[in-house]
Amino acid sequence: MTGLADWWNDIIGRSRVLRLLDIHLRGASQVMLQNNPLTGLIFIVGIFWGAIAAGNLTVAIGGIVGLIAATLTAILLEADDTSLRQGLFGFNGILVGIAIPSFLAMSPATWLLLIVGAAISTIVMLATSHVMKVWGVPALTFPFVLTTWLAVLAAYSFGHLSIRGLAPPSLPAPIGDMAASLDLSAGFLLSASIKGISQVFLINNLVTGALFILALLVSSGWAAAFAILGSVVSVAVALGLGASPTNIDAGLYSFSPVLTAIALGCVFFKPSWRVALFALLGTVFAVIVQAAFDTALAPMGIPTFTIAFVLVTWLFLLPKLDLKPHRHEPLDDGILTRK
Amino acid sequence: MTGLADWWNDIIGRSRVLRLLDIHLRGASQVMLQNNPLTGLIFIVGIFWGAIAAGNLTVAIGGIVGLIAATLTAILLEADDTSLRQGLFGFNGILVGIAIPSFLAMSPATWLLLIVGAAISTIVMLATSHVMKVWGVPALTFPFVLTTWLAVLAAYSFGHLSIRGLAPPSLPAPIGDMAASLDLSAGFLLSASIKGISQVFLINNLVTGALFILALLVSSGWAAAFAILGSVVSVAVALGLGASPTNIDAGLYSFSPVLTAIALGCVFFKPSWRVALFALLGTVFAVIVQAAFDTALAPMGIPTFTIAFVLVTWLFLLPKLDLKPHRHEPLDDGILTRK
Amino acid sequence: MTGLADWWNDIIGRSRVLRLLDIHLRGASQVMLQNNPLTGLIFIVGIFWGAIAAGNLTVAIGGIVGLIAATLTAILLEADDTSLRQGLFGFNGILVGIAIPSFLAMSPATWLLLIVGAAISTIVMLATSHVMKVWGVPALTFPFVLTTWLAVLAAYSFGHLSIRGLAPPSLPAPIGDMAASLDLSAGFLLSASIKGISQVFLINNLVTGALFILALLVSSGWAAAFAILGSVVSVAVALGLGASPTNIDAGLYSFSPVLTAIALGCVFFKPSWRVALFALLGTVFAVIVQAAFDTALAPMGIPTFTIAFVLVTWLFLLPKLDLKPHRHEPLDDGILTRK
Repeated sequence: MTGLADWWNDIIGRSRVLRLLDIHLRGASQVMLQNNPLTGLIFIVGIFWGAIAAGNLTVAIGGIVGLIAATLTAILLEADDTSLRQGLFGFNGILVGIAIPSFLAMSPATWLLLIVGAAISTIVMLATSHVMKVWGVPALTFPFVLTTWLAVLAAYSFGHLSIRGLAPPSLPAPIGDMAASLDLSAGFLLSASIKGISQVFLINNLVTGALFILALLVSSGWAAAFAILGSVVSVAVALGLGASPTNIDAGLYSFSPVLTAIALGCVFFKPSWRVALFALLGTVFAVIVQAAFDTALAPMGIPTFTIAFVLVTWLFLLPKLDLKPHRHEPLDDGILTRK
Repeated sequence: MTGLADWWNDIIGRSRVLRLLDIHLRGASQVMLQNNPLTGLIFIVGIFWGAIAAGNLTVAIGGIVGLIAATLTAILLEADDTSLRQGLFGFNGILVGIAIPSFLAMSPATWLLLIVGAAISTIVMLATSHVMKVWGVPALTFPFVLTTWLAVLAAYSFGHLSIRGLAPPSLPAPIGDMAASLDLSAGFLLSASIKGISQVFLINNLVTGALFILALLVSSGWAAAFAILGSVVSVAVALGLGASPTNIDAGLYSFSPVLTAIALGCVFFKPSWRVALFALLGTVFAVIVQAAFDTALAPMGIPTFTIAFVLVTWLFLLPKLDLKPHRHEPLDDGILTRK
Repeated sequence: MTGLADWWNDIIGRSRVLRLLDIHLRGASQVMLQNNPLTGLIFIVGIFWGAIAAGNLTVAIGGIVGLIAATLTAILLEADDTSLRQGLFGFNGILVGIAIPSFLAMSPATWLLLIVGAAISTIVMLATSHVMKVWGVPALTFPFVLTTWLAVLAAYSFGHLSIRGLAPPSLPAPIGDMAASLDLSAGFLLSASIKGISQVFLINNLVTGALFILALLVSSGWAAAFAILGSVVSVAVALGLGASPTNIDAGLYSFSPVLTAIALGCVFFKPSWRVALFALLGTVFAVIVQAAFDTALAPMGIPTFTIAFVLVTWLFLLPKLDLKPHRHEPLDDGILTRK
């Protein structure tokens, strides 16, 4: 692989067009926290496969447009070059570009919203990075989540933007016992676990899931292993707690836990048994947080996107070595501290 | 103008009462990010005009009471004197004082709520300023928004506080195509754009809007220009996306974009073509965020106030020169980093 | 008392088991911001009394299990030893452990959720402490609130977790005038004020309230005094604003104001007349914020827990001496500042 990487780096060093292509492919790969153009390429192939299979090619085209709009905005804003070359300004844009055609009917107004939204995801990426930098923690996919939430919420107020494929806003109600409709075959478990990985890009497709695992393997065996483990654990936890089998099967309890497992297990900590246990706890918690946001957002009629991944990973990365919580004692510098 | 300013500064240096008056007038002017007592005076005239025209003088009186309560609280807390003299502790209070009589029926309990709320807006201003200082960004009108949200939300639980002039809490529903009721005359566009400026102080009145433009001109030609441009752009975007013509006409899609345009176009950046383009993107985004919060807050039954201005302006001010997003690499100091 | 304290410190210095017991008892006492094992012991006695009286012993057992799970997690994560010994990693866990059996029917799945939730409350405590440390402010009970919100929200999506004792999600509606059902006897006021203190641990019981006051007296006369004053003031404010008499009587308007009064009046500032006035304003505001969150959370069907205490205390601790709000002037370091 090193030979291949050298050859590629040599090539892109000589061509501005190929350099730009490389940046975009790495941007796609960063959705799963990888920095590898081949991984990005296979991700994009998987997205096209899933979009075509679902008869909704605009999802894949939207992803490419979003990736380009977000990356170009970073270039126009003269954002940090090293970060740009690692694809750190593309991964939120590709997700915005996939999510908008997944939940809004496409029209000229919607395409404009997609482009503006992807461009703004870069500004939100810079803003969130500056905020989180104080605590030494990454922005993750929060820019995608925030930007797309705002776009979908806004669509309710605009006659020229039509929502589709979303349950209407509703007050939450307990789902009750769904054991009767439960299928615990190995086929169900395997299918749910693989589709949980494809859902990271909002795709519900077995082949896409398999391609995504292959893409991760190209970049990092650990990432592939934690993705698979994260998906299997999330399916098991969701089943054990009695979640809707339909949603489990569609991978909807797994995409955030998959990202959480990769992030905690092998990206932001070096793999070890202790780290794996920590990542396992985070993965289990991500299933609960996914379910919590499904409830909390129901009255607003918007999807959770990857907020469960963002929140859990932030909470698990924020604790620091030698951190001393503030004592329950008088402040040194409060506004009434004087004298 | 400099001669007039010198004369005024000379006068207020000799009288504590006039100094206090100056602080209050500047507090009113800071709602649109200006530091000018004459601007503040004309704003107050415009507010009284609009309140009287709408047959609801308490709105204007409430504004004055809120302005005084917030400013006196800052003096009692011995807050930073330079900030006080610039009116930075008054602008949230005047807005709290206008908003409460706009949405709650006035009674002795409501007047008490208004005074306590305006006083607390100063504490929230100090708190928000301390939080945002870490990132070198201003508190904007967030203290007003948070305090008034809490007051209106609380009113649902208290029998002695009656809500009025607010649609009851409801689940969001797409508005559908309203093109039939659309009026694209120049009169409509002009009226909507001017009322959009008056709505910064929650007033729906053409004369008030014109007075506010005059008030801005006294302080800064750029501020007046960006206010007008922001309002025109927001009306155009809202029309283009198919928003409710009634709400557009009432200026409800424009007050946050107007503030965003002023803030980004000529207050926190120095005017230039590049800055104007950035402010334009922010203004367009503020229309989308306004629509998004209209949806998100519908189940709670509270108005958006200027949250769209606050959120968009924060997101656009937070990106910094030479900012490097956190790499997707192991943390240096995570709790499991050791060894 | 010093003699007793010395004797106890001497004993726990010799036994790891008693040291661990001491840490757990102090963890219970930190719920009301005290660092005293005897206070913690009396709190636990009060909790058991109230749980048995209400025929729901699992609430008390859950509290103990949560306390242990949270504390052990801190030990496993090798968290700061001094903080551990002060009980700073236990107080959120005991509240998680009490809240879950209060609102969910207990089953093996629920017990697992309780243990995982309490363990995660320690991670959230570390995360929140790291975030708030930037501003020199404590995490308070935010880790409990966030963790338990997520657990209760998630229960709506999981067939094996049943919600109980909670009103179903609903759109807020004004309560109207309830003066007819009002009872202003001294007995009502006393009962409401004492139960307001017992509700800090989600217990609705007079004897428990009296035991809690005794427990505070053991640790600090000021804390007991501010708890009582906070509760009396909150009952008076809630009555004055026309809140539901049933909820006032159950102490539901008082538990957050009680904690706010203790925190602002004698823990984070040293008691003085000026501090007492500031704490009084905070206590009054906490009643309004409690009512506001009752409204805001109604569509999601979750309790407020102590969010009103957390939010108000944060807002009142954040203002600092010599704080200068950001001027409304061009940024030094914005992304478009160059040249």
